[in-house]
Amino acid sequence: MTMTSVSTETTDNAFLGGRVQLLQPRRGYRAGVDPVLLAAAVAARPGEAVLELGCGVGTALLCLGARVPGLTLCGVEVQPDYAELARRNAARNRLSAEVVCADLADLPPGVKARTFDQVLANPPYFQRTTSHASPDAGRETGRGEGLALGHWIAVAARRLRTGGFATFIQRAERLPEMLAGCEGRLGGLEVLPLIPRAGRAARLVLLRGRKGGGAAFRLHAPVVLHHGEAHLADGDDYAPRIADVLRNGAALPFAAAGKQG
Amino acid sequence: MTMTSVSTETTDNAFLGGRVQLLQPRRGYRAGVDPVLLAAAVAARPGEAVLELGCGVGTALLCLGARVPGLTLCGVEVQPDYAELARRNAARNRLSAEVVCADLADLPPGVKARTFDQVLANPPYFQRTTSHASPDAGRETGRGEGLALGHWIAVAARRLRTGGFATFIQRAERLPEMLAGCEGRLGGLEVLPLIPRAGRAARLVLLRGRKGGGAAFRLHAPVVLHHGEAHLADGDDYAPRIADVLRNGAALPFAAAGKQG
Repeated sequence: MTMTSVSTETTDNAFLGGRVQLLQPRRGYRAGVDPVLLAAAVAARPGEAVLELGCGVGTALLCLGARVPGLTLCGVEVQPDYAELARRNAARNRLSAEVVCADLADLPPGVKARTFDQVLANPPYFQRTTSHASPDAGRETGRGEGLALGHWIAVAARRLRTGGFATFIQRAERLPEMLAGCEGRLGGLEVLPLIPRAGRAARLVLLRGRKGGGAAFRLHAPVVLHHGEAHLADGDDYAPRIADVLRNGAALPFAAAGKQG
Repeated sequence: MTMTSVSTETTDNAFLGGRVQLLQPRRGYRAGVDPVLLAAAVAARPGEAVLELGCGVGTALLCLGARVPGLTLCGVEVQPDYAELARRNAARNRLSAEVVCADLADLPPGVKARTFDQVLANPPYFQRTTSHASPDAGRETGRGEGLALGHWIAVAARRLRTGGFATFIQRAERLPEMLAGCEGRLGGLEVLPLIPRAGRAARLVLLRGRKGGGAAFRLHAPVVLHHGEAHLADGDDYAPRIADVLRNGAALPFAAAGKQG
């Protein structure tokens, strides 16, 4: 198991302005803002059952649980050390979450027997065949390609109840692959582009689909992540809407109120 | 032929601030701003060979010919009356353009023997199966679905030289279908969303692909069509960049200078 173990050395990081405290391995895959944005985009309502695929140390799942009360939280994570950290992180944040250590391709019967109102995932961004493998095995599984994106979407769709929503965050350049993966599995697709600065191309996209949904595809106006033209070396230049998500735990709806056109 | 003939009654309309004057049938399909935006987005260079699929009365093809000098222009239009108007419009605007009356599924050998540097198309927006048929046959062919979008893309890709670009304008809700149609045919895909007002969802998308292109997919920041929050009943509230396209014949590049990120 040496190849798949991660360092037991952890750091303790604050998310959502300290509302969520997460232990993460000092080395290996570490959560950035992306899972926080993903959690903010999931329109879960109190009482719903939520499944995160590839939950890592639980960043998105627990940020969502901290924002929306009364959710039934379930996470699936293939790496035992990350799954164990996710369990510890849930307990430390006084959130009840079931974390299952399993491969997406081989979910245990207890998960396969259930359906969920919401499924979320932040699938690996880079295909192993086109990016350099990381020397750290944990980092590799978190950032590299374990399964094709279409497979993540297929698993998400299977675990959704009819009418339930799947929400993904992914690099914008893989949007065509994501949309193709939704074909025949999820309808009413909506894309919320995330652009680093005003006028720039999208770096990331949030994609939402509904099981059995029939609404037309919607491409929303982008959310701008940073203010101004250049990155400030040490400054924190998040746009107000994003700062409100990251610091105050605000939601990030696909369509802002009054901007439905 | 009564069913497919259009009224011989025409109107004479100015495009690009009067640089292009186009006869259009008074009834039936009439060009709006969409083909003008399409023409503005085609990055043709002087001397290139350009093919428009479904050119109607020639709006996009002739607007492009008026903006970029020295192009070899060819248009394909299935409806004889529209093809004839396109020929007359070319002559009236002192542009040399070959207009071929043919179905996309059955291009004549003279067109099939050639390849082009640029192909453009404004395929019909509505599928016949899901929209009401227009009582006017010309309008129906222009707005309804003659061929699946994937077929338009396939024909465009076949007529491109390797390294050549195809540019399409289409309703945003059909973007997944467009992207699926590009699979295996066009690479280096880029999407430029067109949004009616700041913060709104995209109504239209410009999509460009390159034959043999290998660049990653790019989702650009949207172009805002109109100023302000509400539509002015009689006012002309186009955003400056769009007004410059519509009135002055400016280009509408996919990535604005200095905004390549």
